[in-house]
Amino acid sequence: MKVLTFGEMMLRLKPTGFERVLQTNNFEASYGGAEANAAVSLALLGHDSAYLSKLPENALGEAAIGTLRKFGVDTGRVLRGGPRLGMYVFEKGNGARGTGVVYDRAGSSIATAEAAEFDWKAILDEVGIFYFSGVTPAISDEIEAALKEALVYCQANKITVVCDLNYRGKMWSPEKAQKVMHELMPFVDVCIANDEDFEACLGIKAFDGDLSNGIDQIEDFRDGMKEITTRYPNCKVVASVLRNINAVEQSDWMAILYKDGKFYDTPVHDINVMEGVAAGDAFGAGLLHGMLENLEPQESIDFAIAASVLKLSVSGDLNLVSEAEIRNAMQKGSNARLSR
Amino acid sequence: MKVLTFGEMMLRLKPTGFERVLQTNNFEASYGGAEANAAVSLALLGHDSAYLSKLPENALGEAAIGTLRKFGVDTGRVLRGGPRLGMYVFEKGNGARGTGVVYDRAGSSIATAEAAEFDWKAILDEVGIFYFSGVTPAISDEIEAALKEALVYCQANKITVVCDLNYRGKMWSPEKAQKVMHELMPFVDVCIANDEDFEACLGIKAFDGDLSNGIDQIEDFRDGMKEITTRYPNCKVVASVLRNINAVEQSDWMAILYKDGKFYDTPVHDINVMEGVAAGDAFGAGLLHGMLENLEPQESIDFAIAASVLKLSVSGDLNLVSEAEIRNAMQKGSNARLSR
Amino acid sequence: MKVLTFGEMMLRLKPTGFERVLQTNNFEASYGGAEANAAVSLALLGHDSAYLSKLPENALGEAAIGTLRKFGVDTGRVLRGGPRLGMYVFEKGNGARGTGVVYDRAGSSIATAEAAEFDWKAILDEVGIFYFSGVTPAISDEIEAALKEALVYCQANKITVVCDLNYRGKMWSPEKAQKVMHELMPFVDVCIANDEDFEACLGIKAFDGDLSNGIDQIEDFRDGMKEITTRYPNCKVVASVLRNINAVEQSDWMAILYKDGKFYDTPVHDINVMEGVAAGDAFGAGLLHGMLENLEPQESIDFAIAASVLKLSVSGDLNLVSEAEIRNAMQKGSNARLSR
Amino acid sequence: MKVLTFGEMMLRLKPTGFERVLQTNNFEASYGGAEANAAVSLALLGHDSAYLSKLPENALGEAAIGTLRKFGVDTGRVLRGGPRLGMYVFEKGNGARGTGVVYDRAGSSIATAEAAEFDWKAILDEVGIFYFSGVTPAISDEIEAALKEALVYCQANKITVVCDLNYRGKMWSPEKAQKVMHELMPFVDVCIANDEDFEACLGIKAFDGDLSNGIDQIEDFRDGMKEITTRYPNCKVVASVLRNINAVEQSDWMAILYKDGKFYDTPVHDINVMEGVAAGDAFGAGLLHGMLENLEPQESIDFAIAASVLKLSVSGDLNLVSEAEIRNAMQKGSNARLSR
Amino acid sequence: MKVLTFGEMMLRLKPTGFERVLQTNNFEASYGGAEANAAVSLALLGHDSAYLSKLPENALGEAAIGTLRKFGVDTGRVLRGGPRLGMYVFEKGNGARGTGVVYDRAGSSIATAEAAEFDWKAILDEVGIFYFSGVTPAISDEIEAALKEALVYCQANKITVVCDLNYRGKMWSPEKAQKVMHELMPFVDVCIANDEDFEACLGIKAFDGDLSNGIDQIEDFRDGMKEITTRYPNCKVVASVLRNINAVEQSDWMAILYKDGKFYDTPVHDINVMEGVAAGDAFGAGLLHGMLENLEPQESIDFAIAASVLKLSVSGDLNLVSEAEIRNAMQKGSNARLSR
Amino acid sequence: MKVLTFGEMMLRLKPTGFERVLQTNNFEASYGGAEANAAVSLALLGHDSAYLSKLPENALGEAAIGTLRKFGVDTGRVLRGGPRLGMYVFEKGNGARGTGVVYDRAGSSIATAEAAEFDWKAILDEVGIFYFSGVTPAISDEIEAALKEALVYCQANKITVVCDLNYRGKMWSPEKAQKVMHELMPFVDVCIANDEDFEACLGIKAFDGDLSNGIDQIEDFRDGMKEITTRYPNCKVVASVLRNINAVEQSDWMAILYKDGKFYDTPVHDINVMEGVAAGDAFGAGLLHGMLENLEPQESIDFAIAASVLKLSVSGDLNLVSEAEIRNAMQKGSNARLSR
Repeated sequence: MKVLTFGEMMLRLKPTGFERVLQTNNFEASYGGAEANAAVSLALLGHDSAYLSKLPENALGEAAIGTLRKFGVDTGRVLRGGPRLGMYVFEKGNGARGTGVVYDRAGSSIATAEAAEFDWKAILDEVGIFYFSGVTPAISDEIEAALKEALVYCQANKITVVCDLNYRGKMWSPEKAQKVMHELMPFVDVCIANDEDFEACLGIKAFDGDLSNGIDQIEDFRDGMKEITTRYPNCKVVASVLRNINAVEQSDWMAILYKDGKFYDTPVHDINVMEGVAAGDAFGAGLLHGMLENLEPQESIDFAIAASVLKLSVSGDLNLVSEAEIRNAMQKGSNARLSR
Repeated sequence: MKVLTFGEMMLRLKPTGFERVLQTNNFEASYGGAEANAAVSLALLGHDSAYLSKLPENALGEAAIGTLRKFGVDTGRVLRGGPRLGMYVFEKGNGARGTGVVYDRAGSSIATAEAAEFDWKAILDEVGIFYFSGVTPAISDEIEAALKEALVYCQANKITVVCDLNYRGKMWSPEKAQKVMHELMPFVDVCIANDEDFEACLGIKAFDGDLSNGIDQIEDFRDGMKEITTRYPNCKVVASVLRNINAVEQSDWMAILYKDGKFYDTPVHDINVMEGVAAGDAFGAGLLHGMLENLEPQESIDFAIAASVLKLSVSGDLNLVSEAEIRNAMQKGSNARLSR
Repeated sequence: MKVLTFGEMMLRLKPTGFERVLQTNNFEASYGGAEANAAVSLALLGHDSAYLSKLPENALGEAAIGTLRKFGVDTGRVLRGGPRLGMYVFEKGNGARGTGVVYDRAGSSIATAEAAEFDWKAILDEVGIFYFSGVTPAISDEIEAALKEALVYCQANKITVVCDLNYRGKMWSPEKAQKVMHELMPFVDVCIANDEDFEACLGIKAFDGDLSNGIDQIEDFRDGMKEITTRYPNCKVVASVLRNINAVEQSDWMAILYKDGKFYDTPVHDINVMEGVAAGDAFGAGLLHGMLENLEPQESIDFAIAASVLKLSVSGDLNLVSEAEIRNAMQKGSNARLSR
Repeated sequence: MKVLTFGEMMLRLKPTGFERVLQTNNFEASYGGAEANAAVSLALLGHDSAYLSKLPENALGEAAIGTLRKFGVDTGRVLRGGPRLGMYVFEKGNGARGTGVVYDRAGSSIATAEAAEFDWKAILDEVGIFYFSGVTPAISDEIEAALKEALVYCQANKITVVCDLNYRGKMWSPEKAQKVMHELMPFVDVCIANDEDFEACLGIKAFDGDLSNGIDQIEDFRDGMKEITTRYPNCKVVASVLRNINAVEQSDWMAILYKDGKFYDTPVHDINVMEGVAAGDAFGAGLLHGMLENLEPQESIDFAIAASVLKLSVSGDLNLVSEAEIRNAMQKGSNARLSR
Repeated sequence: MKVLTFGEMMLRLKPTGFERVLQTNNFEASYGGAEANAAVSLALLGHDSAYLSKLPENALGEAAIGTLRKFGVDTGRVLRGGPRLGMYVFEKGNGARGTGVVYDRAGSSIATAEAAEFDWKAILDEVGIFYFSGVTPAISDEIEAALKEALVYCQANKITVVCDLNYRGKMWSPEKAQKVMHELMPFVDVCIANDEDFEACLGIKAFDGDLSNGIDQIEDFRDGMKEITTRYPNCKVVASVLRNINAVEQSDWMAILYKDGKFYDTPVHDINVMEGVAAGDAFGAGLLHGMLENLEPQESIDFAIAASVLKLSVSGDLNLVSEAEIRNAMQKGSNARLSR
Repeated sequence: MKVLTFGEMMLRLKPTGFERVLQTNNFEASYGGAEANAAVSLALLGHDSAYLSKLPENALGEAAIGTLRKFGVDTGRVLRGGPRLGMYVFEKGNGARGTGVVYDRAGSSIATAEAAEFDWKAILDEVGIFYFSGVTPAISDEIEAALKEALVYCQANKITVVCDLNYRGKMWSPEKAQKVMHELMPFVDVCIANDEDFEACLGIKAFDGDLSNGIDQIEDFRDGMKEITTRYPNCKVVASVLRNINAVEQSDWMAILYKDGKFYDTPVHDINVMEGVAAGDAFGAGLLHGMLENLEPQESIDFAIAASVLKLSVSGDLNLVSEAEIRNAMQKGSNARLSR
């Protein structure tokens, strides 16, 4: 079954090591974006994964496409043209200094694309699962309109819709997000909601905002997850990641899956964090893997959280790990031994 | 006497070595722009040099300002705010492959600034020379309007105006350039015109476009220079660089100064080229140095062309050389001996 | 029409800059091999290009496959397994020191593969052109046997066979090469023969071995090319590159195409050389491009030599250039102007 | 109010990553020194900050000055000339291996400068606060003499004197330090005393030398701070950092301010340490910020310790952070969330 | 007294930072191997240390020898020739991802060497201690045979034999290892047995395989150590490292020495781990240092474990530390203070 | 026969690529010095080569010694101690910008050593050839005195003395150099004199100082060489390198040997220059190789000049080439072919 993910892909610039932008002569370059990251994860897990966006016809656009192709993603549906590739600067934090992001995504090829450019009948041909995150409708009104059309088409054609709410405060306000997501949720079959997503995207109070203390609020999360399925009955599955972020470098992570009225909790992973970004996309892809492989709910969510915490050990936005490595990370202490 | 230069400053990304964007994991980061480059050169030559632009209030904007300050440029007049810092990717060519540039400057802070943001009375206070290149009016209609106001103010207040025509085909068409420059030239006191600038910016045929053969067209260049002063009598000095570009890595360069009805030719510099960019800005600054130091015309143009060819030996947009090094480069063969 | 290329792919390790192995702490890593390089070139030119080899199931094997996929090559036919990826160290020369290569390709997955592993009926399904170089039969007797089977199948199924003789003295002796190539040539439709290939692979004296003087021996090359078609009447097209290598960094290159009894000469390209490797593979791909696009003979060979000299400006084994760039390089002096 | 800091600036060479000098091919280059670091911090916090030293007239001297200017420090008072820039090699420790420093500062331009070169009337013109650390008088007898003259001038002209005792065992002995500081302390208005400074510089026993256990000795520190004001009544403010260094990578930090007979304690910051150097200079600058902004004592010391622990997250000697980032670090757990 | 170590040396390729092979463009290159590492440690500790292996006559072989020589190892006994230098790729893990190793050592010069190439009488001339690890007999049957001859010679000539069992599951099976080691152990005077070595190499159950819990099994380890001396009475000294590996980045390490019927325990070192490789070789060299310096058993084992945990802070396979640094690491908290 | 070379060794810092000190964040680190370079060349050529200097007991001193040992030089005679390792910054030039050097060698361990520290009887034990360059007596009066003692010992004990005049204008004046060399030359058996050495060191006019024109002054050089042997009859062999330096990147080099009243000229090598430093030391070592191998004069000087031009292709101060590579470079055009 083919999975199509839809969103924006950007050039990511990261100063060498822990350097700040103000002092560096050098940026490590990579390419990513929430939905592209998920597509790469799925391809690496052996699934038929395709990506949809609009990318410029210049060297940066080619490099973004090349990145996707390298890891096995089908890029045949990507629209080409428009003014530029979005960009973001990633300043990796440590100690007392949090990680910082400078977005420069306005005016990108996807942000200036028109809804009419998307021929959904052709694009969704042979697609079984359609995946997007909250970033996608936040890109522009045109992209939101295009997305809405896609969701209508999916529902009419029994294509499963998966949405990671993925709130981005630098892209839109809670008011705008709630207004838009309220229109889109009735088409969503599987919903991923983490941390502030509940409140910012849906206006549901499930988390008090204290990331050092997420796991302790597990009951509130459960209430929030249930509430989603109550409000949007089309949405039958909800998954959430809960975290106690103790330091930039140290976190406890767990996840909950809510399905058919039951909650499935994963063990808590207590981990050192090398690079705290894109773990949510890895989680989404892990969840989709469970759907595509028809895993049992418990195994499915255990797989997803292991995929997610593994991402924290990989440089860049892409979760460059294999299924075997994820299965290994599902075992406590599995990373201690050097196999040689 | 304070010199103010006005234009756009960008983040420049260059893949390591001769790598192409499609294959690199790494960009060397630096900051530059025609008028910023000239301001840095002037500061390194010991002059009171200030820069004007609008730069965003984020880490990239800070880094651009820090770069100027590092080399002694007064950044107190720079406007802050707006959406982004313009950017360009610089792919260094060699052998059969020419150098390539991907511009990503649309929507920058300066490009979205309004003319009304510039309080010229305050900005030009204590300024003796105002310098811009053809890039500046090409940024946007608002910047063109702002520039026009500045030039009116300069003429009224006896501030010398220096313009490097500096045509950029990726920014505007010859038609637009000619229309705009026709309005601005009556305010210009000193004009730098190279290669295609004559025709693209002014509609004057002085060069047939064959860069491998510029020096052989010296008489046509002379006619073009004279024609500028005829058409725009306010412009009393014209300077031009002539080149025979034999390969990406090898060029012959010379310059002509036209002043008070006389032509002053420099010797021809036959040089290996390490990085063929921003040499025109170094030339402009060299010429300004002659004005500020009241050098004789011949010494002035000899200094300017030496500054210009030295730039071809320096990485980045900035001509990081001293007056002593320029004077040394005015001597033939001066680079052969290792002093130790 | 699908092109399949067949050969060995290796990890290439190159010390940073001009460092020697003995002094470096660092290797630039890339992946390539004659036939893989050609496949990448074809994919970048927009053709349906597939690659065949056997690559190990480890991280290095994955990286090799990812490289091919990144640039659009179909890797679905690649066999997986075996002990290791071949490797070579590339020490870039300059001045008085020539470029050096340390091969470490013995015992690789492809070198230890058996002929029986190749199901040619399936592999060659839908293939229109089959491409290999002299490196392929030199890998092992089993690979030679497999190749022979492939060629028999091609001739029986009207699949065009293209062979770049590509002699490697570190892999086999002239005696062995001549014995093997004599068996394979009757199946070859298009033959590329450069420099020492004539004598080492076919025993035909067309070049005296003095690389500083190849172009002056043009008549001998012509005689050699004609002789190939006389000896092996199935081979109707022969192409050769002629070179005057004046220094590690400077060469004159031209090519000749012999087709239907006529010789087509290209202009001589006088070029600075940044990295003198894999230009022959780029030439082969350029020639295939002409076949796939039905170009006229003169345009075809002009395109191939331009592709080849462009490679000398690109780091790594892969000719990461576009059709537009190659067409641009067909124009004299096209690399001099910086487009911006 | 202008702040002038006075001391030595050095080239700092750090092997890449965690490499040792014995194995590296590469040094990361930066420029710093206790008082220069403080000047940069003040400039980044928006204050009028100037630096005084003597730097050689060569490329390394230019680079040191450029570094200061980049971050907004006024370098107009710096003396130029002399033989060399001091240098130090910084080998970053981890795990069981502590950080190592090789000093090579003998014979530097500042170390060979004479007291008579400093025209304090001109240098201290318009200066409101004069800042030095214990490193400065340790440079040479001449510099000690120059400093003494400066302090006399300050006291006579109501310029506030701030001294960070900053003991360096590789530069002088406790005996020498105590002798010199005993002469200088009567001119000091604000004193920073950390760890071993009490005993080595002043002969006051306030800390037993066990860095894993500093915070537990808080009462002894308080006694020591009070003792300073008793001995040197001109000194009305004392600030100290207390630490439990649990590992190279992990520390607890807090600070105490003693002012007008009262102690103000900060919360304890439990932090991962990326680079444990120059945090004292950041602390000093934070304290000066409080003075310049007339912050309340509690806010002032909370700000200073937050500035100090932030430095532990930044590469190089300079605390490249903004006031907003310091204020953010004053909040517990503020670094956990990635803002995007 | 000269020590000779015998084994295989390899090129080690490590992707930059925490990059994975699949994403890197760059490998950090170094050279090492268990017995070479031990030889380097001994030379750095001032001992007369020689190494024996067979290395190819190419640039990689030269670089391996140069590495040994740089740190003072006598390479005069190394055989030269054969096809290639073995290689391994080292992917440094972190967080949820363990460190990974890809071996590519088949067909190396030492693996294809014949027993007859080793003239033990000449090689062992003047040697007082002969050191090998379990890697050596696992290389090939020929090397095992050569090693057997060496041991016979040693016993006959009163050369002390030290063996680190050092089991490598990727090189041989427990069955093969036990069969071979059973033949070799009667010649061993001092044996190092860690973790799984007891069972895999000797079939003695002393450790349940849970590396997060090694220290808690201390009594089982003691039983195993005693059992070794019982089974192989020639072996009078056994040393073991016990570990609680809590995370890739965090471990508790201690060691036990069993000698003359007594156990000597070291304190537990609780350490951050930067690079978890080759610490066993550093331990072996530390133990040999004790033998060569006639240290008391307690000091000897304390020294060995401190050397071992120091290695975890050094990049590469070699423990580039001095005796003074090891002695310093024997003190708790010694790494906290920055000496300057 | 053992060769001992005596001089100073320094840390060399080179900005990455063609960066200037003012803009770089990074220095490539290596270690060298005229006489150390010659010692390394000799060791790589298989000779028994030892080095004498005084190096500090710190990490930089260790690294310098490690460099020598790596390439096979006997460092057993090196004195240890003193304040620091000398240092120099190497800014590689190109195009119109010459290469620049910033020396920082004052106060080094060797510069502060006393003559009495050198026990020449022990140091010169078993030495057959003693080699120094003009740099050595320029270090300090004490070193000059020590050198004088060494030469007296050599003459008394029939140790051949080789001196490369190697004038350094940044170290001493012609007056001082001539005074000192006049005292030393009576002990010199073989003298190397290049370019300005004749006049600056000996007051002999053999070269007009125009490096673009050295070869054309061949007769003057010959006169100068003869004059040396006339003035200092103990000196029976003189060798000189003649150059036409046409650009930083391009030179013609040849050499002359004068022996037994006959001149032996080498062919002219027309070469691209990658790094124009330390070629004289490579030449000296090449000449010594001829002496050690008893080569005929013509072969000897041909070998030396080939060694010298090869150095221009190698990064760093050391000529990391083999005898086979030098012999290959003696053949015209030998560097053109890529052997694979």
